[in-house]
Amino acid sequence: MKAAVLYGERDVRHEDVPEPKISKPTDAIIRLSASCICGSDLWPYRGLNPITAPMYMGHEYCGVVVEVGSAVKTVKSGQFVVGSFCISDNTCPHCKFGFQSSCEQLEFMTGAQAPLARVPLADGTLVATAEKPSEDLIPSLLAASDVLGTGWYAADAARVQPGSTVAVVGDGAVGLMGILAAKQMGAERIIAMSRTKTRQALAIEFGATDIVAERGEAGIGKIRKLTGNVGADAVLECVGTRESMMQAIQSARPGAMVGYVGVPHGVTFDGQELFFAQRGLMGGPAPVRRFLPHLVDLVLKKKIIPGKVFDLQLPLSDVAEGYRAMDERRAVKTLLRVT
Amino acid sequence: MKAAVLYGERDVRHEDVPEPKISKPTDAIIRLSASCICGSDLWPYRGLNPITAPMYMGHEYCGVVVEVGSAVKTVKSGQFVVGSFCISDNTCPHCKFGFQSSCEQLEFMTGAQAPLARVPLADGTLVATAEKPSEDLIPSLLAASDVLGTGWYAADAARVQPGSTVAVVGDGAVGLMGILAAKQMGAERIIAMSRTKTRQALAIEFGATDIVAERGEAGIGKIRKLTGNVGADAVLECVGTRESMMQAIQSARPGAMVGYVGVPHGVTFDGQELFFAQRGLMGGPAPVRRFLPHLVDLVLKKKIIPGKVFDLQLPLSDVAEGYRAMDERRAVKTLLRVT
Repeated sequence: MKAAVLYGERDVRHEDVPEPKISKPTDAIIRLSASCICGSDLWPYRGLNPITAPMYMGHEYCGVVVEVGSAVKTVKSGQFVVGSFCISDNTCPHCKFGFQSSCEQLEFMTGAQAPLARVPLADGTLVATAEKPSEDLIPSLLAASDVLGTGWYAADAARVQPGSTVAVVGDGAVGLMGILAAKQMGAERIIAMSRTKTRQALAIEFGATDIVAERGEAGIGKIRKLTGNVGADAVLECVGTRESMMQAIQSARPGAMVGYVGVPHGVTFDGQELFFAQRGLMGGPAPVRRFLPHLVDLVLKKKIIPGKVFDLQLPLSDVAEGYRAMDERRAVKTLLRVT
Repeated sequence: MKAAVLYGERDVRHEDVPEPKISKPTDAIIRLSASCICGSDLWPYRGLNPITAPMYMGHEYCGVVVEVGSAVKTVKSGQFVVGSFCISDNTCPHCKFGFQSSCEQLEFMTGAQAPLARVPLADGTLVATAEKPSEDLIPSLLAASDVLGTGWYAADAARVQPGSTVAVVGDGAVGLMGILAAKQMGAERIIAMSRTKTRQALAIEFGATDIVAERGEAGIGKIRKLTGNVGADAVLECVGTRESMMQAIQSARPGAMVGYVGVPHGVTFDGQELFFAQRGLMGGPAPVRRFLPHLVDLVLKKKIIPGKVFDLQLPLSDVAEGYRAMDERRAVKTLLRVT
């Protein structure tokens, strides 16, 4: 089969690779309905993580099970499934506590920018639907696998409450999904920080009530003004840079939580500053599996359309263009057609 | 009147000072029933905060109102009151959000190691009891003013749940009160980290079920062993050093919150480490006023006896010995008799 392989900085290719096989009895093989490119794929693509060997890319997936290992009990061939980018057994104490992204058997999914993929720990990782969903729902179900689940976790970690005022730092795909999540959780006011017209429009479509285009001190000042000099009740940090984290903390009111899901790069916190500012922090790789049944249900009932976050669709053979478009911020998120 | 005045490193004196007067219409003057020395008083006492002018010490207090300013509406002369060490209006948005320690008009109480003290923003800061409480309850009501309220906040910020396993780092007065709080909140297992026999005994009296005397890696290992290699569901950090904070974070399970109330000294966090460890942080100066009505009620109904935390009682005239005993860790907490 042909799949996406990253060879080095800005060198991603669509080329022949071996088809995945069951390698452990807890594995499943799925035929993907669609795949996509994640913002986090851009870290190695941009050469910010060293690449020592060709990497099979892609960790977001949904599709039909074609084979299961001998120990797989709940998932069957022919079922349509959505899985988390974090592979988990869903039975260990961390999973039971709702933190499947810290599973004792944690692995990260790879090789999903391909027609077929191997999913380890299939019973713990995959959620099957009762029927095969219609084609128009595929992008939204695919989104649940990571980008939606991660935005949802940001809102969960920030403890968004009904009626609250929420600020979202970052207008990438995760930030946009954070807006959708905050809206679903009943936030009354959702302030999106975004400088780009097209992303502002998407933010509003997903539920943002206010747009702040300014950054730094000006951005913080704008949020203070919008909140009567109080700050937001909950803040979602969806970038991971030092600037965005400071923006998030200073946009929050005392006592508020900052839910952060952008992998921090060069971010440190001073304990005493954080103490006197009295802002809370919670974040990490999203335990998408916790939310997945609910998210799949919301999509199937057409209560949310997270698939709108894909503003570029390409065949898998054009994967290199998909990466380029996201790298150059021409696209928010690229969906890859695998059939 | 004679009160405690700090002149420099380890130089606290009992000497003549002017009696406090109403200086703003929102003030009240109270005659203290008792006063005490706080662990945080040791920072300037040890010369760790520079002292440029003589400091009137003491911020924990309860007693009888003797005079109120013209704008005070809810507090009357003759009433017995307990107040928070954080002065707050209890009406601003931060107070209404439960974070009176970030009040728009925030001040910190001073001059309470004295027979009389001025309490600014009396309506927002003081909680009056229906009757004058009996003498035996005074130490416990005094504790509510800061040390109990601060330990309670650590447990609140760590989101202690009924049935949970809680670890408490720090066996000072605040840590001991954190144990009491966790017990009241329904924790099933409370692991106290303490190396001192007398403090271990107090910890058990307040509700600790397990004692870990080891520190550093050995201490973390012991907590992992006690929790089936999972970590604690909630951790209270009641010291403020780098070592104690690392101990706290590493004793917590993924997804757990660390409630920290020791003022951090030399503590920094690495964003990426915290992200992948997936531990949450919430802390700051305790919003004692939020908890005060409940705490006073628990004391009056004799459901808790936080006053046991005072293991040394001295007349105010011996304040210098009170500081020495705490500085040398001969006493957990010193109560000062003012009458």
